Amino acid sequence: GTQIAQQVDLKKNLFFFVCQGTRDYNPKQMAIREKVFNTIISCFKRHGAETIDTPVFELKETLTGKYGEDSKLIYDLKDQGGELLSLRYDLTVPFARYLAMNKITNIKRYHIAKVYRRDNPAMTRGRYREFYQCDFDIAGQYDAMIPDAECLKIVHEILSELDLGDFRIKVNDRRILDGMFAVCGVPDDKFRTICSTVDKLDKMPWEDVKKEMVNEKGLSEEAADQIGEYVAVCVAGGMDLAERLLQDHKMSQSKQACAGLSDIKLLFSFLQLFQVTDKVVFDLSLARGLDYYTGIIYEAVLTQAGVAAVSNEAQNGANAEESVSVGSVAGGGRYDGLVGMFDPKGRKVPCVGVSIGIERIFSIMEQKAEASAEKVRTTEVQVMVASAQKNLLEERLRLVTELWNAGIKAEVMYKKNPKLLSQLQHCEESGIPLVAILGEQELKDGVVKLRVVATREEIDIARTDLTSEIRRRTSEA
Amino acid sequence: GTQIAQQVDLKKNLFFFVCQGTRDYNPKQMAIREKVFNTIISCFKRHGAETIDTPVFELKETLTGKYGEDSKLIYDLKDQGGELLSLRYDLTVPFARYLAMNKITNIKRYHIAKVYRRDNPAMTRGRYREFYQCDFDIAGQYDAMIPDAECLKIVHEILSELDLGDFRIKVNDRRILDGMFAVCGVPDDKFRTICSTVDKLDKMPWEDVKKEMVNEKGLSEEAADQIGEYVAVCVAGGMDLAERLLQDHKMSQSKQACAGLSDIKLLFSFLQLFQVTDKVVFDLSLARGLDYYTGIIYEAVLTQAGVAAVSNEAQNGANAEESVSVGSVAGGGRYDGLVGMFDPKGRKVPCVGVSIGIERIFSIMEQKAEASAEKVRTTEVQVMVASAQKNLLEERLRLVTELWNAGIKAEVMYKKNPKLLSQLQHCEESGIPLVAILGEQELKDGVVKLRVVATREEIDIARTDLTSEIRRRTSEA
Repeated sequence: GTQIAQQVDLKKNLFFFVCQGTRDYNPKQMAIREKVFNTIISCFKRHGAETIDTPVFELKETLTGKYGEDSKLIYDLKDQGGELLSLRYDLTVPFARYLAMNKITNIKRYHIAKVYRRDNPAMTRGRYREFYQCDFDIAGQYDAMIPDAECLKIVHEILSELDLGDFRIKVNDRRILDGMFAVCGVPDDKFRTICSTVDKLDKMPWEDVKKEMVNEKGLSEEAADQIGEYVAVCVAGGMDLAERLLQDHKMSQSKQACAGLSDIKLLFSFLQLFQVTDKVVFDLSLARGLDYYTGIIYEAVLTQAGVAAVSNEAQNGANAEESVSVGSVAGGGRYDGLVGMFDPKGRKVPCVGVSIGIERIFSIMEQKAEASAEKVRTTEVQVMVASAQKNLLEERLRLVTELWNAGIKAEVMYKKNPKLLSQLQHCEESGIPLVAILGEQELKDGVVKLRVVATREEIDIARTDLTSEIRRRTSEA
Repeated sequence: GTQIAQQVDLKKNLFFFVCQGTRDYNPKQMAIREKVFNTIISCFKRHGAETIDTPVFELKETLTGKYGEDSKLIYDLKDQGGELLSLRYDLTVPFARYLAMNKITNIKRYHIAKVYRRDNPAMTRGRYREFYQCDFDIAGQYDAMIPDAECLKIVHEILSELDLGDFRIKVNDRRILDGMFAVCGVPDDKFRTICSTVDKLDKMPWEDVKKEMVNEKGLSEEAADQIGEYVAVCVAGGMDLAERLLQDHKMSQSKQACAGLSDIKLLFSFLQLFQVTDKVVFDLSLARGLDYYTGIIYEAVLTQAGVAAVSNEAQNGANAEESVSVGSVAGGGRYDGLVGMFDPKGRKVPCVGVSIGIERIFSIMEQKAEASAEKVRTTEVQVMVASAQKNLLEERLRLVTELWNAGIKAEVMYKKNPKLLSQLQHCEESGIPLVAILGEQELKDGVVKLRVVATREEIDIARTDLTSEIRRRTSEA
């Protein structure tokens, strides 16, 4: 039933009312969204972040040259006179623009907002053209790998608290990738485009990735095979893999790769102190598409529950080989050059950050909510002001005013003479726990009949005690 | 100093980095914004509203024909293949589209989101091209004027709680305006455009409004003068004015006007029960530009503090004539036909709602915050984990992990060997109340030195008692 209803809704979205790849949130979905946001924001605040906001559109030139091959997915606004504008593609570039514009060299901030990509929507799998990102970034000149490790700690905390099943955080470093490309014989000017192809390894088998490198990107077969040896063979590990690669006769020829590998080792030592190595793997095949990364990169994926047990190499990082990924839910990395691109003098501000992509998380939470018997409340109303008799509209409005003025969340039916039954039904449907019932007799006696919806118990309460009684009965213990 | 800095910032916004008429929010502004939102959301929830969200862009055709002369201010997206899209101009049309699409006939919802208008920005007065609206609407077939009155109660509560100085809520009814136009001899097909001109009365003197009616809109001089008698002479009042107009020999010839005037009387009787008549005036000159209103309309304006005392005709509505308006901060009305425009069978859902325009409110709150001595905190960090000696990075990371895992909001400096002074300075600057200081001796003794930043008091706390001690000292009493 639900399955069919959803398909019909999707059809309506696609062909009639709203733009392809976008959706409305109904009150139930909003209640779930609020819960997810609260968990994420609490974590960001626990780590001392401030928050900022930026406009939904940026000057087109601000976004130009930042996203590599993904630039074609940027939404432009129509030229209606004035500046050329584009919808933001992520929150990282606007953040870098904000830092340069305000000459800020030190900040730890979070930003939760919608971003826009003209991608092929796959809404059943939580891929939309308008979607939320929850970003946490640390800008400033600090000692190596400490802020980077905190970003991973944050991903670990959020995914654990949301209780979405098992997950894995893959880590790599652009310097290691670049070093590897160099020692495998990739020409310098092909680093970024080959990196984009390596990024597809989580969706395509190695053979297809190799084909793209050789046939489309014009890489020599030999270089491709050498890359294959690294990314397809010694994929995932922990500190031990970093150590092994540092000993590797070819890899050790690249200064860049060695710097990256040493930092991976340092990172893991901090991750041990942060108690998160159980979920983190050093994965040579992780590339990430965006152009602006300069150091460490990472991506968190949910692993299909039950498919594979997590091997707990708590000291060295876990082994991800057997588990099946069901999709990325967070990603990020270090981008030390981006702020400088917006500064007239090119002054750099080192940055590292993480972006939680919550649409997939929403999908999972929604499925969970549907599966559970518990009803999601969409309002917080404490009491309904009702009457059993006719001609008491004025008295109901007077009482509900008293309650509102005292800060009680209260509702009244917008009818002159509503039936008591329909007033009670509304309470049942929307989970309102109490009803304050007025009648001629109660008014004469200066009392209100307070009914507990769940038990149908009714007690007369002196009008002067009503607000405190409602508060007492609806306070969350 | 602040004044000059702000102008420089504005210049930068306008000519260099961000789109004209938009702005970034820095952490301090975000802290103020959060406070304003909390007040508004609490009020909406107190009145039992659910919340929804809709995409930032709609199909272009969804917005077509809904905004009258303001349609030229709609932002369109560039045609990059696929559907033609526009940025939302308000939250009301997307709400109506949502109701029709989901066949909802009953809902009380709020929606807080940004909307977009290609207007001339006047940022110093809080007018932007990207700005927030906070909307509360009641959809459903109910008895006359009860939901309408609740919307005004909500405006009254919010503006009172935000403590922005005195305000006035002007009320009128489209049926009264249309009836007045009819009895004054305005041709039917000119109602909407003449209404737009009347709407300018708060910015232009009557003589200019008359000129526009006669010269631009082609109205007869005689009809214009008759309108002038109503809107420029008997402008503002309460129930008494409605009664007087019901007796007016010309006005009483229009059935529409009489229905509107009777409803104004009914509305004021509910407003008395809601205890809000002190700020509400029935104002014949209020027109509001948008096409979709069908009944009651209203607008709240802040009145310059001190310029005029509010006359307290608490039973009949206040008299606004002497006070000077400094700008509209809320507006709304009844739109019974809008949902039907999206329904294939034209099925109507009566709606009434209000939109709080908070940019002006932000401006005022920001000025207040600047003027006050109190420092706005932008984080909630409870404790900084610090050390006085070198080589304690690992110990600091271990301790901050303990605190994070216990739910304490804590920070640590991202340096191997930070100076104690710089760690303490950071606490002073960002208002962190406590510092947990580690040293060789403390580690040996299993204690942490807890320093209270304000008093410089230092006490040794057993490591096992640290989290509860921090919680005790930073809980808001």
